[in-house]
Amino acid sequence: MAAVARSGIFGIRLHHPAQVVVAAFGVTILAGASLLMLPIATAGPGSTRPITALFTATSAVCVTGLVTVDTPTYWSGFGQGVIMLLIQLGGFGIMTLASLAAIFVSHKLGLRSRLLARAETGTLDLGDVRSILFGIIRFTLLFEGAAALLLTLRFWISYDEGLLRAVWLGVFHAISAFNNAGFALFSDNLMGFAGDELLLLVIGAAVVSGGLGFPVWLDLRNERTRFTRWSLHTKLVVTMTAALLLVGMVTLTAFEWDNPETLGDRSAVDTVANGTFASLTPRTAGFNTFDYGEANDETILVTTLLMFIGAGPASTGGGVKVTTAAVLALMVWAELRGDPDVNRFSRRIPATAQRQALSVVLIGLTALFAGNLLLTATSPFSIGETLFEATSAFGTVGLSTGITGLLADPPQAVLVVLMFLGRVGPLTLGTALVLRERDKLFRYPEERPIIG
Amino acid sequence: MAAVARSGIFGIRLHHPAQVVVAAFGVTILAGASLLMLPIATAGPGSTRPITALFTATSAVCVTGLVTVDTPTYWSGFGQGVIMLLIQLGGFGIMTLASLAAIFVSHKLGLRSRLLARAETGTLDLGDVRSILFGIIRFTLLFEGAAALLLTLRFWISYDEGLLRAVWLGVFHAISAFNNAGFALFSDNLMGFAGDELLLLVIGAAVVSGGLGFPVWLDLRNERTRFTRWSLHTKLVVTMTAALLLVGMVTLTAFEWDNPETLGDRSAVDTVANGTFASLTPRTAGFNTFDYGEANDETILVTTLLMFIGAGPASTGGGVKVTTAAVLALMVWAELRGDPDVNRFSRRIPATAQRQALSVVLIGLTALFAGNLLLTATSPFSIGETLFEATSAFGTVGLSTGITGLLADPPQAVLVVLMFLGRVGPLTLGTALVLRERDKLFRYPEERPIIG
Ligand SMILES: [K+]
Ligand SMILES: [K+]
Repeated sequence: MAAVARSGIFGIRLHHPAQVVVAAFGVTILAGASLLMLPIATAGPGSTRPITALFTATSAVCVTGLVTVDTPTYWSGFGQGVIMLLIQLGGFGIMTLASLAAIFVSHKLGLRSRLLARAETGTLDLGDVRSILFGIIRFTLLFEGAAALLLTLRFWISYDEGLLRAVWLGVFHAISAFNNAGFALFSDNLMGFAGDELLLLVIGAAVVSGGLGFPVWLDLRNERTRFTRWSLHTKLVVTMTAALLLVGMVTLTAFEWDNPETLGDRSAVDTVANGTFASLTPRTAGFNTFDYGEANDETILVTTLLMFIGAGPASTGGGVKVTTAAVLALMVWAELRGDPDVNRFSRRIPATAQRQALSVVLIGLTALFAGNLLLTATSPFSIGETLFEATSAFGTVGLSTGITGLLADPPQAVLVVLMFLGRVGPLTLGTALVLRERDKLFRYPEERPIIG
Repeated sequence: MAAVARSGIFGIRLHHPAQVVVAAFGVTILAGASLLMLPIATAGPGSTRPITALFTATSAVCVTGLVTVDTPTYWSGFGQGVIMLLIQLGGFGIMTLASLAAIFVSHKLGLRSRLLARAETGTLDLGDVRSILFGIIRFTLLFEGAAALLLTLRFWISYDEGLLRAVWLGVFHAISAFNNAGFALFSDNLMGFAGDELLLLVIGAAVVSGGLGFPVWLDLRNERTRFTRWSLHTKLVVTMTAALLLVGMVTLTAFEWDNPETLGDRSAVDTVANGTFASLTPRTAGFNTFDYGEANDETILVTTLLMFIGAGPASTGGGVKVTTAAVLALMVWAELRGDPDVNRFSRRIPATAQRQALSVVLIGLTALFAGNLLLTATSPFSIGETLFEATSAFGTVGLSTGITGLLADPPQAVLVVLMFLGRVGPLTLGTALVLRERDKLFRYPEERPIIG
């Protein structure tokens, strides 16, 4: 462990990266909720209820996008500005903390880190943290700036919005898209733009860029298209992202092809475009161009799976992460082939990384099971509906079949906890587990139970 | 690999234990379906439809207990006799084949097998197979005989049945219980006996005995209560069975305590007794004393989880098996503690067993996900309902919220496939994976992706 953790990033003595992450997110959420409780944050008279402020602040900082009130009509311009700020802080925070955690882990394991040229020296000082911070700021500004510019032009020219309003819409949705937040300033999210492939393309590109993660972006910037020179991490993230996108695109387009309540009445091109958008938004932007309350059960099931898997590590996206899913899939594949090692792209995946991946997924499934149990117990909705909403919260996705807005306070609190766990859980768990690795002192004799 | 596999158990040249299992179950199901298609098998005129015969034969041989027709009224005495015979063959077959597979695996890995004194010599001849067969026959007859006797007395004395009818009911339900089949000769399964704790106790004891598995029974017979001398396998099965029973008992009793449609109107003692019975029947007997169609969503969720986990290996029960779940839980526990090895009861669980457990569960989840997708696509029922039914089929449990009887032919075919996969899948997979283990020839350099 390096100098930063020992001295404390915020001047507070925090002994463990996991504590930093939990503290940073907790404090930001509470500060955001306080701001949203000010009378000027709401469009109507008076100030909002504490649970609404807490839910919205958690949803914004955890870049989830689930809402219990209508963002454009319930919150004032000030309130929407606070939400945008919280999204930016949340997305920036998770990328930064996850990148720093990855470097800590590399140190601890004596690995060279691609994230930092100096990492191999084994020490980490404030200058290194600054270089990571500036790298992430550049990454963020580049993609958010480009998306904001294109979206502003689109809103200004094609939708006859005034320039100022177009800039506001452009900036808000660029930030919401790149940070995979899924908040929109339209009451029906992006359903009004289902026919606007250009706008969906810009939003989709921002979503995927943010979801690949900072480590991948560094690799792509340095090595561009020289696939063989990418790190194993980048190869796994890019191939899994592409594979999941393809599977989602084909299945979701097929499932909703004939559904008049969603995409059935649209042109073939529109249907494919929206099916593709629906394939990338569970990972984990949460924008929607059709009503998931009217979607087929098959769509709900596949989307639930995609939401649980999520995006890349140290990205703005959520879920258990595509590398985690990739490692588990590769373990099964190696087992089926009878290979003693788990290999991919001529690299061997360490046994400790395998067990971490299993732990992140099993603990995630346990949290999701418990959360879903509490949701069904406190709300009148069916298991399919609560499972979708619980996964959306845990994966910090923000898609909804419409039940979140109808929930009473206790199930809203369950979703708040799920959003927080889903945001800080996989990262802190993945990091904490590595830092706990101990040496073998003595070993018990081996004995094998019968499996299966 | 030993002499048996090379010469072929049935005179056919089968190169792999997995092929033996698949062939044995496939042939028995087809033979059973043919018998059930005879006109004398049905109570009404004419003969049954092929899909009904196939579904019932699969459900009986795979000891599942899901039914599309009412067992006592649709089938004749001959038909019911065929079902009973198929249950007995199925339960006996799975215990035998799984026990032999466990011995093959021990040989291959150079381990001493508790199942066979001679196993350590490294050869396996027909005498050894005979000793396993006779051991399982003794195990079966002992428990089925005792249960049949007690049940017969109960039906004869307390329910005023004629002696012959009481014997028939006693034998049928003893066989159905010990083999974890869940078929009953009452249209409402065991709902009419919800107030008969004595009968539930006998059925429950038979269910748990069959579900522990032959290897555990051997150990218990030889070592009785000397826990420290039990094999790791027996310790894991017994402690997991007890833990799951306890968790299920507490949660299910609590969930249905106030539900007037299930247990709410019963006395406290009755409610606890039926809650306990509901806790052991998903592992994986499938008898029910209340209507799962009226149960709370929380009950459905917990029951679904218990059904997926299932019973002990080389038992008459299904699911991915309690040892599989135990190994995965121990892996997560070791990871959280930072232990490099996965230990329990002063024994180390081999890395290969860990990866096999992961593979059995992940492939099981994949099969279940695909099956559920096909069920929702081909039937009008909600995701919660189809998930329960698909898990019940895959875990060969037989519990139902009532939708199986309403399914059209295509979703019935999906359930047939799920029952077959759920029965032969985990065993053949677990065995096949061990036999594929290869030596390390060369290793790729290690590289670690970011997890979580
Ligand atoms: K989101
Ligand atoms: K059963």
